[in-house]
Amino acid sequence: MQVITSTKNEYIKTLRSLKQPKYRRQLGLFLAEGGKCAWEALTYGDAEALLLPQDAPDAGLMALAQQKQVQVICVSDAVMEAVSEVKTPQNAIAVVRRPAEQSFLEQGVIAALEDVSDPTNVGAIIRTADAIGAAGVLLSAGCADYTSPRAVRASMGSVFHVPVCVCDDFRAELTRLKGEGWRIVGAHLKGQPKLPHSEKHCLLIGNEARGLTAETSALCDDLVKISIYGQAESLNASVAAGILLYRLREGF
Amino acid sequence: MQVITSTKNEYIKTLRSLKQPKYRRQLGLFLAEGGKCAWEALTYGDAEALLLPQDAPDAGLMALAQQKQVQVICVSDAVMEAVSEVKTPQNAIAVVRRPAEQSFLEQGVIAALEDVSDPTNVGAIIRTADAIGAAGVLLSAGCADYTSPRAVRASMGSVFHVPVCVCDDFRAELTRLKGEGWRIVGAHLKGQPKLPHSEKHCLLIGNEARGLTAETSALCDDLVKISIYGQAESLNASVAAGILLYRLREGF
Repeated sequence: MQVITSTKNEYIKTLRSLKQPKYRRQLGLFLAEGGKCAWEALTYGDAEALLLPQDAPDAGLMALAQQKQVQVICVSDAVMEAVSEVKTPQNAIAVVRRPAEQSFLEQGVIAALEDVSDPTNVGAIIRTADAIGAAGVLLSAGCADYTSPRAVRASMGSVFHVPVCVCDDFRAELTRLKGEGWRIVGAHLKGQPKLPHSEKHCLLIGNEARGLTAETSALCDDLVKISIYGQAESLNASVAAGILLYRLREGF
Repeated sequence: MQVITSTKNEYIKTLRSLKQPKYRRQLGLFLAEGGKCAWEALTYGDAEALLLPQDAPDAGLMALAQQKQVQVICVSDAVMEAVSEVKTPQNAIAVVRRPAEQSFLEQGVIAALEDVSDPTNVGAIIRTADAIGAAGVLLSAGCADYTSPRAVRASMGSVFHVPVCVCDDFRAELTRLKGEGWRIVGAHLKGQPKLPHSEKHCLLIGNEARGLTAETSALCDDLVKISIYGQAESLNASVAAGILLYRLREGF
């Protein structure tokens, strides 16, 4: 077990740089903040270190890290604050290696997000995808980074459970899935309220403000919408995704 | 039309104080930031002023404010930044009088939140309640303030469409609703997956971390849950509320 109390320590400087997407990509590392996310990272992810506050380190997490042969680093409050993205730092931060892209399941429901820009939405949708036992989550390159601290926190650790794939050529990937028998269902204000039946659905959710692009909408087998009965124009992207993912999973 | 370029102006100082719940309550005022929310506030709320950037004021909003006899104040970027809660200030901020509590509809679905602490969740749930044409939204005193800038933004202006009531004695209010024939349905990890049928549902959603309190759960006619098929332990509160509100509205 190591103790670090200086925010100028080289490793701590590296961890502080992980707030920026550029360094997360370059170093292939990201942070899982909070006891719950750190626990998931240690259990299901590829963690390289666990930061705990030196004054009150969580014994359960420390034991788990030791069992998983992950280095434990006890740090001062100042270091915890410097590394953390939140105002009130959490009781644990795991440093995690970005996973290699995993294969999707061969049937079920894929959640595919086109340019969803709010990391909280990306994280919450990954959490719902996990809850339905989704085949995987496909992200266009224009989506918020799912390894950002806010997305990881919003996923409540589900980024460590579900295969997630970021696609440089999103439409090419959708076309490939279509060829493999996935039914592409786009959430669209001009869609139908009724959902199609299939063993293999890929649900497309678009950007919060603009929805799906015309080009991506044109690729869809079906466009579906959620009926609006009141005066709201639309729903929050993660709420809409949640409603549709559950309908596809439960078949109504 | 007034022009204000000093952040020290007395009215601007008042508006800056509205970031704090205490002053929102004391002054009976809150802010609706962004073009969409400001438009909803002018159309459906009781706005007293509209702040627009003096360099590029939105002509449509200005005309709407004039038609509604709401004072337009053109302000410098510095003033806009000082009043705004977001890092990149929006193109409009409406100053709105807190509405008197409105009566709920006599049937349909009520969304009742017990100590939901994230203003983004409170706002997103009000948005979904609006989308289903809910009878109203009931908030326990321990919920995040629905007139906070983050909640108003997350509601996308739906706070101006749906009757919202904050209850000092939440359980007494639920008991009263029960007496009026509302069926109280609590979202609970130990609930049943099947939802009851009724003309009058009141859906209870608990705190993000702790769920419903035991006392409030005991008041419920039914406890319902959303099935989990994967490894997530639970769903985001606004996603769970969205799934259940739509199920109750659409009867499955």
